[in-house]
Order: sequence, then C-alpha cells, then structure tokens
Amino acid sequence: MQTFSRKLVTIITEAVLEKELIATLEKLGVSGYTITEARGKGHRGVRNTGWEHGANIRVEVVCADPLARTIASHLKEHYYDNYAMILFMSDVEVLRPEKFTSGGGATP
Amino acid sequence: MQTFSRKLVTIITEAVLEKELIATLEKLGVSGYTITEARGKGHRGVRNTGWEHGANIRVEVVCADPLARTIASHLKEHYYDNYAMILFMSDVEVLRPEKFTSGGGATP
Amino acid sequence: MQTFSRKLVTIITEAVLEKELIATLEKLGVSGYTITEARGKGHRGVRNTGWEHGANIRVEVVCADPLARTIASHLKEHYYDNYAMILFMSDVEVLRPEKFTSGGGATP
Repeated sequence: MQTFSRKLVTIITEAVLEKELIATLEKLGVSGYTITEARGKGHRGVRNTGWEHGANIRVEVVCADPLARTIASHLKEHYYDNYAMILFMSDVEVLRPEKFTSGGGATP
Repeated sequence: MQTFSRKLVTIITEAVLEKELIATLEKLGVSGYTITEARGKGHRGVRNTGWEHGANIRVEVVCADPLARTIASHLKEHYYDNYAMILFMSDVEVLRPEKFTSGGGATP
Repeated sequence: MQTFSRKLVTIITEAVLEKELIATLEKLGVSGYTITEARGKGHRGVRNTGWEHGANIRVEVVCADPLARTIASHLKEHYYDNYAMILFMSDVEVLRPEKFTSGGGATP
C-alpha cells in the first residue's frame, strides 16, 4: 500500500474567530478542514484577557507542505499578536493524495 | 524512560457511519478507540452531497504499524468511493505498548 | 519561515479526572493545554469497570521535549495503574517557541 506525505496543520484559537479564520483558509487555497470544539488555557493575545478559559476551536487541515507553511506564515503575521492562537504542524501519511493536494482539507 | 513507536490512525467521516465503522475496526482487531464530534468541509463521496457541512466524527486508534496499514487499506477499499472519509497516519511514542499492541486502541 | 521542534502530548482519560489532571500538569510546569470532550472504548484501569463507554477527555499539551517526558513519566507512575488513561507523544513544528517553552501549552 503506497502512502504519501502531507502536513497536518492544527490551529487552536478563539471560537469567535471561526468565520474569519475559515474564510482566510479558503482564500489561501484550503478546500477542506475539520473543526472540533475545545476549551483550555494558555498564552493570550492582547484582546483576550477576558478569555482565560473561553470557548476555543481546534481546526485541522491536511495539505501539501508548501500550503501548510503558507497557512502558518499568514496566520502568524495576521493573528498571533492580537488573538489567542496557537498552531502546530506535523507529518502525516495519507492514501489518496488527490483528496488533499490542491489546498488540503482535513474533512471528507 | 523507554518509549515505543506506534501509529496514530485518525479517521474523519460522517457521523452516520459510526456504528458500522466501529464494528469494522473491531473486526480488524482494534480493541480501543477515541471518538470526538467534529464538523467540517471537504471532498465528498457520492452519497454525501447533502452533507456539505454535516456532522462528522473523528476517530483515533493507536496501534502497531501493520494494523494501522490494514485499517487504512481496508477503509480505502470499502469506504473511500462511497462515503465522505479521510484518514491519516502519524508516528507516536507510547510508554506502555501492551495497551496498544494487539489491536491498538486510542482510549483508556 | 523558521520553525521549532516541540512535542505534542495527548492524554485521553476519564472526564472525572480532569480537575486533578490539570492541577498535576500545572504543577509540572505546563502553562497551557487544550481539552476536547471524547468518548471511546479501551483498556480500563481497575477503578473503571463501570466506564466501558464513559465520558472521556482528550488533553493536549505542546511543550519542549524534556517536559513532555516528565509529564509522561509522572502520569504513568501515578495514574496508569488505577485509571483509564492513555498517553502518546508526537513531534510537531511551531513558529513561536516562546509560546510553549517554559511549560508548554496547547491552547492560546
């Protein structure tokens, strides 16, 4: 069974940012994503002092490496300073790369 | 502290498929799994045109590499064409391999 | 774009253990974490025979490698025998290591 390397990008941020974040991801070329509800505690952006334990979302995108880096770079530049957001990337194997290649997508 | 290598298999699919998917995983030898509710957008199987943003589940199994590949291969063959499903695998380290070896399991 | 290596520690355990687990993680130096609700099936600790399909939580911490190993080791020693708990670690890349270094944290 042949597998292909892709990146899993996981973004955890304030739930209120969902609509804008999804629009941003789609503009960057993401065609699929998965969202789960989350909560937690962590470092906060300057606007988020009231969000100590607020509602978060956990967004996953599986995509080719260059798009993953574009997403990471764009979100860092536009959101890290002002929003509670963390992002991490990891290597994953997939079976059908055409499901992910042209913009990723971590949901069927 | 000694750690052991296992595979984390993450499956994201339509919530309506849960019962059948779990039965399939157990038949393949999986003894444990974790389910979280999710939602998202992505490529769709032919039966799922009505599920553009429908309820999804995110199923995780930690298991030995061969079982991970068996799961991936089986799900690809039986579900990828007709259901909204993506699957990705990644390397993880665990402390107590006996919790996972004979069929994996991503929940206590 | 420069990235930095960190560990993602994922802990899946009984929901009733949440408060104690979070206190333990904070005592070990964790400054941020993400919690999602989960359910599942798996190996059970001796106190959990009634939890065959009970409520679980999935806790994520992103931190430097030594802290990840401290967490894993401590939880194994203190909880594995008596609670339904699994833990796995994986490698992730992050952009702003200062968000995670001194105790990790998988939520903004």
